[in-house]
Amino acid sequence: MIRQTVKQQNIRIIPLGGLGEVGRNMTLVEYGRDILIIDIGFRMPEENMPGIDFIIPNISYLAGKEKNIVGVVFTHGHYDHIGAVPYLIEKLGNPPLFASGLTKAITIKRQDDFPYQPKLNITVMKNCDRVRLGCFEIEFFKQNHNIADNMGLVIKTPVGNLVHTSDFKFDDNPVNDLPTDFKKLKTIGENGVLLLMADSTGAETEGHSLSEKNIQENLEEIFKKSEGRIIAATFGSLINRIQQLISLAEKYGRKVAVDGYSMRTNVEICKELGYIKAQKGTLIPAKELSHYPDNKALLICTGAQGEGQAVLMRIANKEHKFIELKKGDAVIFSSSVIPGNERTVQVLKDELYRQGVNVYHYKMMDIHAGGHAQREELKQMHEIMKPKFFLPIHGQYSMLFNHAKLAGEMGMPEKNIAVIENGQILNVNKKEISVEKKPVISNYVMVDGLGVGDVGEVVLRDRQVLSKDGMFVIVAIVDRNTGKIRNSPDIISRGFVYLRESKQLLAETRKKVVEIVNKSAGTGGAVNWVYVKDNIRNKIGDFLYAKTERRPMILPVVIEV
Amino acid sequence: MIRQTVKQQNIRIIPLGGLGEVGRNMTLVEYGRDILIIDIGFRMPEENMPGIDFIIPNISYLAGKEKNIVGVVFTHGHYDHIGAVPYLIEKLGNPPLFASGLTKAITIKRQDDFPYQPKLNITVMKNCDRVRLGCFEIEFFKQNHNIADNMGLVIKTPVGNLVHTSDFKFDDNPVNDLPTDFKKLKTIGENGVLLLMADSTGAETEGHSLSEKNIQENLEEIFKKSEGRIIAATFGSLINRIQQLISLAEKYGRKVAVDGYSMRTNVEICKELGYIKAQKGTLIPAKELSHYPDNKALLICTGAQGEGQAVLMRIANKEHKFIELKKGDAVIFSSSVIPGNERTVQVLKDELYRQGVNVYHYKMMDIHAGGHAQREELKQMHEIMKPKFFLPIHGQYSMLFNHAKLAGEMGMPEKNIAVIENGQILNVNKKEISVEKKPVISNYVMVDGLGVGDVGEVVLRDRQVLSKDGMFVIVAIVDRNTGKIRNSPDIISRGFVYLRESKQLLAETRKKVVEIVNKSAGTGGAVNWVYVKDNIRNKIGDFLYAKTERRPMILPVVIEV
Repeated sequence: MIRQTVKQQNIRIIPLGGLGEVGRNMTLVEYGRDILIIDIGFRMPEENMPGIDFIIPNISYLAGKEKNIVGVVFTHGHYDHIGAVPYLIEKLGNPPLFASGLTKAITIKRQDDFPYQPKLNITVMKNCDRVRLGCFEIEFFKQNHNIADNMGLVIKTPVGNLVHTSDFKFDDNPVNDLPTDFKKLKTIGENGVLLLMADSTGAETEGHSLSEKNIQENLEEIFKKSEGRIIAATFGSLINRIQQLISLAEKYGRKVAVDGYSMRTNVEICKELGYIKAQKGTLIPAKELSHYPDNKALLICTGAQGEGQAVLMRIANKEHKFIELKKGDAVIFSSSVIPGNERTVQVLKDELYRQGVNVYHYKMMDIHAGGHAQREELKQMHEIMKPKFFLPIHGQYSMLFNHAKLAGEMGMPEKNIAVIENGQILNVNKKEISVEKKPVISNYVMVDGLGVGDVGEVVLRDRQVLSKDGMFVIVAIVDRNTGKIRNSPDIISRGFVYLRESKQLLAETRKKVVEIVNKSAGTGGAVNWVYVKDNIRNKIGDFLYAKTERRPMILPVVIEV
Repeated sequence: MIRQTVKQQNIRIIPLGGLGEVGRNMTLVEYGRDILIIDIGFRMPEENMPGIDFIIPNISYLAGKEKNIVGVVFTHGHYDHIGAVPYLIEKLGNPPLFASGLTKAITIKRQDDFPYQPKLNITVMKNCDRVRLGCFEIEFFKQNHNIADNMGLVIKTPVGNLVHTSDFKFDDNPVNDLPTDFKKLKTIGENGVLLLMADSTGAETEGHSLSEKNIQENLEEIFKKSEGRIIAATFGSLINRIQQLISLAEKYGRKVAVDGYSMRTNVEICKELGYIKAQKGTLIPAKELSHYPDNKALLICTGAQGEGQAVLMRIANKEHKFIELKKGDAVIFSSSVIPGNERTVQVLKDELYRQGVNVYHYKMMDIHAGGHAQREELKQMHEIMKPKFFLPIHGQYSMLFNHAKLAGEMGMPEKNIAVIENGQILNVNKKEISVEKKPVISNYVMVDGLGVGDVGEVVLRDRQVLSKDGMFVIVAIVDRNTGKIRNSPDIISRGFVYLRESKQLLAETRKKVVEIVNKSAGTGGAVNWVYVKDNIRNKIGDFLYAKTERRPMILPVVIEV
């Protein structure tokens, strides 16, 4: 019982995702019984997870504690912060949600794809708005990022103030947004910050992130010199970039079509709420783009990562309904390349060059700026907040580590800095921080089609094996009376060898199967079919490896008739 | 017959690999009947080629022309220039080979892994050595790269001189090598160059490549400040970097162990030939490294790309026999990250940080230089050679394109520049160049285990499908007399759902199969089993998709007994 009392004095911070990875952000703040949730995001799968759509946070820890959830606060509308809502919100007992106007709109729009979901209960929070949830009072404050209506959080707790930066960058010249309000940030810092939780994504990158103003100037160069159509590909969620492109189009007298499902949806929402501004008549449907001269046309589309079914790829592959490339077109890649996509982007670029297009990408000139504070901005944030304790969040372990190191270099004692991972519990009180010995469950929950969490290690490993050397099914029908194989065994193989050209290999394999079965089974008495099947699997496996140096998955089926 | 005579006046350049890709370099130079081959390399597979080991050039064009091959000249000992020799040399009729000393040694050493190969007949060519092969006279000239004994080629032909740069960079301060011999290059240029074939790998990168001298200085900083062990990972083929590390170890009193099969092999060869210089006692076996104090130990190893079985990964995963990481160790990634490997390298870096190691990589400081000329060096090469015609080689299409553009910007007329792809035939005579309409076969030949070229589109596509949603085999035994299914159909599925938790789905599927078969087959008369199987495939496919939104590969087996 004493332990319980001691615990009551601590705030417990429990990251369920977003630490040691980029994406899947979800953090719990717990005091006594009250649990506050910050963000419910997903992430994209790793390369060794074929067929998986997304990975979402594991909320086992919250099972049975649904009634203790005082609310969910969202920082911004990117899917790595809101994307797991449709999968998890019902299991969380559909708690009250709090978000900025744009974040709310995107979150609600997304629910359309999940018709059986409960209606979301989202309260809009504006800059400096406050809400009391259980023992917490949360104040939302504007932070610049590459999507509008991004909010940092001041969480007042019985122990002290926690500050969560959200994803952020400092920008004196943002698009369609106010510059960073350093005065407000300073006030937050002056009110005392017990614990700072700050975005680490840019902690390994020297310097200051580029201002969107620079990007705009460089994009304008391309508009100035392009005499053909301009096709600008970027992320569907990069609302600010889309706005820049629309403004430039208006300045240079081009009509704008937006193509790509996610991008069109976002643009519609943002226009409605005023986060994207376009003059009447600027935006036209993609199919009308060809009604205008080449130098009056701009297409903004998805596909800057070389994604197979995105618009730019369909255009490059001549599979797009309305747009066909021609010499003189300019294609702009206005996005960075997400690690892992380099090869596909290169292949796409090559294809564009082959078609005589002028290609512009971020390695040639600054036509993309990241949305994350780099080292100089992070230093500034630490200086402004002067927190007692620091927890780096959002990023690969190397980013968290280097963010922690930066805090140390700025004079924070090592014992006041916590580099923790998903599932680890950070205890915070006025005097000290400590990590609890026992972490909570935080492993991946994979989404594949309608299945949430049903694909585990076994299924994934099978997929990996199948992809490497294919599979080899052997069906043997055994006569119950004689114990001998009837006819010749059937073989079904895919992804192993080209069967039509491997007749001899198959014939030899069949012969070996007959030998194995007849030897094991033909001696009279009860037959151990498990043993026979193991025998087929091992012996045929070795035989095929000796012949091919490949190891297909071998699946013997023995049926007695 | 007239056409034949006209052709006789042209040199034909036929790239079988290396254009529009990085790696798999192989080019034919043909005049009359004589065919000269430059390099026989391989490349690594793409991400969508699971299970494939390498891709090698397609030599169909040479079938029946083996006796016309006057010889093969190799530029250097990297596998993208010599790696396909064991697979192709016999099919080429084992022609005479010409290479520098180090290239010869590496090529011969590799043959050890292929015991049934014919003995190679390689003549060593030194700087300025010449050899006459058919109507060609080839002169080898030294070029700097990141492996020693790299050779450019001047090919004197009846039409004029061709210059092949090999992979190259200009370096005034190389390691264990002479600086670029601009005087020699100028002489080559002054003798007249009809066609320049130049490395394009760096054609999209501004500026001048770093000198190895800078790299050495930065590496030295790490040696100066490291008080623990140093573990330096790089490519096994990066002989020059290995030499730098050995020299620094000697300067700072560290013993050196080299680990990783390919790296150890290369170091042995190079030491024997004098391309790596180490004092007696500097190099020790990896298992003895622990006999020395931490600040006296350097391990040079493979694994800088996060490759699963390479040394650094085994160390990070605590699976290495002799080396276990500890706080204070320094790990240096002295290599760039090959596109496509970013994720695995990040995961490896994270793991190293977790173990408290000091990590140094090329984004933090210049501890790696590429081996390829960047735009300033390429301009210099064009200025020196002043070729009449230009063919960009070695690189993705975007690199070839931008290299061609650079030549145009330097004043070469567009009609004198040829951006061609593998299989296209460039005709060159004194007056003009032109591309033949009909290309030769140059598509991928994939190596998978012992199979060379037997894995094609069908097998690869099956592997891709299998990896995405797994497979689902349905075995139905049908009674020949009644036309009805005997017992319940067998189902074997892998990579689709976790079977133990999907009993109901399987039961429903079995029921559906029984219905389909009995309906089609139970009516008496001849049964169209192909139709029944298609029916199972389609209906069960739709059923499973409706239940799971996954599309496993469905393989029905119907057996009459």
